[in-house]
Order: sequence, then C-alpha cells, then structure tokens
Amino acid sequence: VPPVVTLTTDFGPHDSFVGTMKGVILSRCRETQIVDVTHEVPPQDVRIGALRIAAAAPYFPPGTVHAVVVDPGVGASRRAIAVAAHSQLFVGPDNGVLTLAAPRTASDWRAVHLTNSDLWLSKVSSTFHGRDIFAPVAGFLACGGRLERAGELIESIVELELPAVAASELEIMGMVIDVDRFGNLITNIRESELDQRTVDAVEIGSVTVTDFSQTYDASMRLVVLVNSDGWLEIAAPLASASAILGVGIGEPVRVRLRPEAASTRGDD
Amino acid sequence: VPPVVTLTTDFGPHDSFVGTMKGVILSRCRETQIVDVTHEVPPQDVRIGALRIAAAAPYFPPGTVHAVVVDPGVGASRRAIAVAAHSQLFVGPDNGVLTLAAPRTASDWRAVHLTNSDLWLSKVSSTFHGRDIFAPVAGFLACGGRLERAGELIESIVELELPAVAASELEIMGMVIDVDRFGNLITNIRESELDQRTVDAVEIGSVTVTDFSQTYDASMRLVVLVNSDGWLEIAAPLASASAILGVGIGEPVRVRLRPEAASTRGDD
Amino acid sequence: VPPVVTLTTDFGPHDSFVGTMKGVILSRCRETQIVDVTHEVPPQDVRIGALRIAAAAPYFPPGTVHAVVVDPGVGASRRAIAVAAHSQLFVGPDNGVLTLAAPRTASDWRAVHLTNSDLWLSKVSSTFHGRDIFAPVAGFLACGGRLERAGELIESIVELELPAVAASELEIMGMVIDVDRFGNLITNIRESELDQRTVDAVEIGSVTVTDFSQTYDASMRLVVLVNSDGWLEIAAPLASASAILGVGIGEPVRVRLRPEAASTRGDD
Repeated sequence: VPPVVTLTTDFGPHDSFVGTMKGVILSRCRETQIVDVTHEVPPQDVRIGALRIAAAAPYFPPGTVHAVVVDPGVGASRRAIAVAAHSQLFVGPDNGVLTLAAPRTASDWRAVHLTNSDLWLSKVSSTFHGRDIFAPVAGFLACGGRLERAGELIESIVELELPAVAASELEIMGMVIDVDRFGNLITNIRESELDQRTVDAVEIGSVTVTDFSQTYDASMRLVVLVNSDGWLEIAAPLASASAILGVGIGEPVRVRLRPEAASTRGDD
Repeated sequence: VPPVVTLTTDFGPHDSFVGTMKGVILSRCRETQIVDVTHEVPPQDVRIGALRIAAAAPYFPPGTVHAVVVDPGVGASRRAIAVAAHSQLFVGPDNGVLTLAAPRTASDWRAVHLTNSDLWLSKVSSTFHGRDIFAPVAGFLACGGRLERAGELIESIVELELPAVAASELEIMGMVIDVDRFGNLITNIRESELDQRTVDAVEIGSVTVTDFSQTYDASMRLVVLVNSDGWLEIAAPLASASAILGVGIGEPVRVRLRPEAASTRGDD
Repeated sequence: VPPVVTLTTDFGPHDSFVGTMKGVILSRCRETQIVDVTHEVPPQDVRIGALRIAAAAPYFPPGTVHAVVVDPGVGASRRAIAVAAHSQLFVGPDNGVLTLAAPRTASDWRAVHLTNSDLWLSKVSSTFHGRDIFAPVAGFLACGGRLERAGELIESIVELELPAVAASELEIMGMVIDVDRFGNLITNIRESELDQRTVDAVEIGSVTVTDFSQTYDASMRLVVLVNSDGWLEIAAPLASASAILGVGIGEPVRVRLRPEAASTRGDD
C-alpha cells in the first residue's frame, strides 16, 4: 500500500513553501500519498497547530507519517524530533506541537532527536527546516526507514500545556481555545470533564446560554453542544457565534452545573 | 488504476475538517487519489456548492466518486444520499447540492438513501457527517463497493432550483449567480438560451455593456462573453467587473436582443 | 514510479478551476500524483508566478511536469509552450512565467510551441486554456509522451526580466520583489551579488537596518538575512517586517557595503 504523509503548517497558501516540502518528500519516497491537514495555522501558533493535528491524526491509517511544522524557533536551539505513538509517526520541532497528537501516555511512545544529518538535504538553511530536515526525514520514514536511524532516542520532549480548567462542585471555569470556520466557539472543556453532571447554563461574554442542542439545525440563537471532537462548544445555528458575541480565543467561559446528585443530561 | 475521490465542501482551509475526511477515506481505501474541487463554498451555500461540482465533475474519469458536503441540516432530518449519474458517483446530503452534477435526466441515474450504518464510522457525531458518514461511504464506493450496498434505492431526491430566467422575444431577464476569483460576473443565462439570436446589449447595475469579446484580452472596460462553462458573463479585461460595477451575486441582468430574424452573432 | 505533475496558478481556491484541471490530468494519466505549488499567485502577476515555480521546482524529482498557468493573454495571440530543462518539463503560456524555473542556460533546454491540438480537449474555450490545453498536455507528458509530439521545436521564448539591481563599489540598489506569509520582505538581491563583501547596513522605507541574523529567532526588531532561497531579506523576528515598515513589493532597498577590501561577513 502507498505510504501516507500529512502536512500541518503555518505556511499559508501564498508562497511555495508547502509545494517545495512536497517535492522533497516525493524525491525521497516517490509513492507517498501526501495529504494536507491545514496550512492555515496562525503564524507561529504552536497551540493551534497541536490542536489541528490532534483532531485529524486518529482518523488516518496506521503507519501514517505526520509532519507538523509550526516552528518559531527554527534555526535556533530547539531540537528537531520524531515521535512514534498510536501506531503512527510524527515529525516536527520540539516545542510541544506534537504532544497532543502523540502523548507520552501512548503505549508505543518513542521519541528521537533528529541528529542523523545524512537523511537531510545536503545543504540545510537556518530558516526552512520544513524543507531541509522535516520533509526528507518524513520521506525516509514513509518509505519504511526506522525511527532509530533518524537520531538518538530521548526520554522526554517539550510538553504543550493547554490552559487549565478550574472545576468545582457547581461550576467549571474554562476558556475559548479555538474558533472554527463557522464561528463556533470551542472551549477547553471536554465532555468527560462534566462527569455526567447536568449543565444548567454557560456564561460567555455578556450572555448566559441556556439552550442545548446536538446539532446546528436549531431554532435558538445560541446553543451549547458537544462537538465532533468531544469539546464543549457554543454555536449559533446557521450563523457565527463568534460574530454574534464579539468574542474569540481566550474568552472566559463559565459552565454552571445543576446542584443535585449526579444525573445525565438525558434525564432532563 | 487508482480510484479517484473528489471533495467539495464549505469547510474552508483553517480547520482540520478536510484533512480528517481524507484520513477516513484513505483508511477505507488506501489507494485512493483524493482531489480537492474547492473547500471555499460560502458556509451553507448549497447553490454555490452545486455549481462548483457541476463545473468540475464532467472533466473527471469515469468511476470517480465525488463527495460534496455543504450541509446546513447535518444531524437533523435531511437524508444522506449517494447518486450514480454519467458513469460517476456522488455522495452528500439530500438538499439539492448534487442535482446539477448528477441530474435525474442522466440515463444511468440511480440514487440510494444511505442507511447501511455498517459502512460508517463506528461512532457517528451529530455535527460532522462529512467525517462519519460521507467519507467512509466514499471510500467504500471508491474501492468498488456497490451503490446498492450503501442503502435503499430511492426514486427521487431534493432538486436544486436555480433562479429562473425570464425570456421574451426581445429580452432575457436573469441575474448574477456567481462571481469568480477574477471578479467576472457569471449569470444564470446559458448560451443555449440565446437560441442563436444576437445580443445587442447587456444591462447590469447602472451600465449598459455593448462590447462583446471571446477572451479577457481586450481593450474595452467591460465586455460580455460566454465563459468556459457556457454561461453568459460580464467581465472586465485584466480587472474586476464586480469591483468596477460594485455588484455581486443576485444582481439583475437584462439581455437585450436584436429585433430582427434569427441570426448568429458571427454575422455582425 | 508514479508520474508527478505540479500546478502553479493564479486561480485561487474559491472556484473549481483547479479541481477541473486535475480532473483533466487524471483523465489523461490516471496514475499521476498531482501537487499544488500555489494557486494564490496574485491575478495575472506573471513575475510572482515565475518566482513561485522557480523556488519549488528544484526540489521535485527528475521527470516532474510543472504546469504553470498565469495567463493574462489567454485566448489571444500569446503562444502556449512546453519547455524541458534540468531534467524536468514545464508547460504554460509563453509570457515569461517559465523562464526563471527553466532558463535558457540549462544544458538540456528545449522548447516547443504547443500546436498539436490532437492532445487538447476536443472543445477548446477561449478563456480557460489551463483546462483545455495545458492540463491535457501535462497529462500527456506525465505519462511519458515525447515533448516533440506536443508541437514544433522553437528556438526562443519570451524571457521574464526581473527588476535590475544596480551595484557599485559601495552600494547595491535593489527593491522588494516579494512578501511572504510572515511579512518578510524579499529583495531582488542575491547572496552571490554581495561577492563576499561585507554589508554595513540596509536602508528600506524610513529605516536603516544594521543587525544581521541567520535565523528568525532573534531579539532585534528588524534584521537582514539571506533567506532559504538565497535572496537578501529584511525580516522582523516573530513579527511582520512588512507591517512594521508599511512597505511591500516595489519598495526600493539600498545595501551599503563596507568600504574596505573584500572580506566575508564571517570575519566580523
């Protein structure tokens, strides 16, 4: 079967950075199927890059190689690394961008510091390791190269910290960590955080949202739902919640829980 | 030969929705060549989605599977369907988005309501059927799965209505239904509608355009032409007609025909 | 091994132009791996198109076919051409867009005027040669078709002229010719132009930049560096030099050289 390599970067569509990386990958492993996850990570936004690849990676076949290049420290002292986790491989800078998709807790977790320069392009620039290091290493791994040949095994890598959620018996304090194409406001509160307790209302910006929905097809102006990745989300059916509320990433969110004994929302 | 699957969505490039769908398709049919038609359909704009896939599909090889996900009713009562037409297959919501590309008039037209949940992802969300239903079904069909295995044959699907053209002996009333990258104003008037009659002028916004061209390489400020898909179009050579006229989708267009007997424009 | 075809256009992502071209290529050569270099060349900007493919092409495998469609003269008298150079093939309009990537100086340079209409789509529009001529010819070449079968050998093609650099003993006058995603200001001055002389300062807009860096990871507000393609560049570490200086393409740049005998910057 053909190898699969995905790309997640902050390179945008205007330049030829992404095309150039694909040329290198195909030069190293001609049969590769290359798939874009996104190249619209905001410039140097490691957290959004980490969220994007974490959302997509679980849906790719075993053996897929994910190259993630959001790299504000390119050419400086940060390490270039490759990580094995969940039967897939991840290549990128050691700045936390890989850690949501390839968490240390994976049973097959291994990581190497990319030090084998024989695998890189012969001339390595100081400013475009996506082309000169990550793409050729991704191609090497895609064609079956062993992780341990790419560098030295390391025990730990830089971990990304998502903003913490503060939970008490009656409320959960979180924040908006992402706004999608449709203006849906995605919080850092996972469905599992609710622990089967019933949500009474969600406060965000100047409003209190008390309607809940499972879909975007609703008659309410604003609803709370659990999105397809398992995060609590505030949405405006067929409109943009971000535009309606005038809020975005970083906005505090307060989830008010029903004060009775544990009950599922289905009991309502 | 490798199967081909195309994607047409309103997901935009910023999130990982599209990449995730591709992961599912490759997980179901590893050899697939996946091609993007566009992901910049305006959010929930079923008509633009229908126009995009209708323009592109005829140029793809027989057997191509087109997944079209512009789906304002996701998770609600609209059906998920697959349609065979013109030796190709189309997968998407039953909201009209497929009907320009896969019209009922095709001699090989067949449609199924996607009810065989064995083909879907094991956990189906209420908000992302692109990932959970349409992608795995597209992968199934791409690898040769039979349409009838995906669901129950149905006799009719929701048809998209394009805005109607009103034609009389001396004029055709239409409207702008699309504006392309270059600011060309594409109308809902097909070349065949002219029925070989000669166009004298086209009125749009506050202007009357009386120049005609076959190309964008012209010295006039505004011209009327028949575009590469057969639609009547108002264009500004090397500039944006939309910007010059300050008009866009929905703008009325009046085509004035020459009052004599049928004659082709080539007679001018 | 599967053939590779790249696409570089000014078609943008909103329409189905690019997807349609890919359908034609796959219809002619089903095994092709199609790679986007970029479709965000500014409309009709031949120079940016030429820079994009010139930056990317060297990183693709031998035999790659590059289709470059930035074509303000489509349907008019400009020729459609294909060029062989550096063991790759290039297809596009004869307006200079191919000449940076496929320079006449390449030892294997050959060019043909695309006149063999048997290779084109059966119906050729006046406005979309990307679909009707360039895509099918690219598919033909990708599947091993001989260049000479696509048309008649020609001795010269239209050459693109980059804005000239004016160099004297103590200074080099150039200009900004590109602004990348990160706001870096790329000049038309190549590292080789410095001829190992030491740069004292770079004047651009209202400022004089005297700091130099090899990476974007620096504490200075603005730095001069040689970018990954070998061009002199003014950058703002982790910010946008273009936004800070309020300048873009066309802005004059003056490089002041140290008045002593030839010495490399490494001597500092």
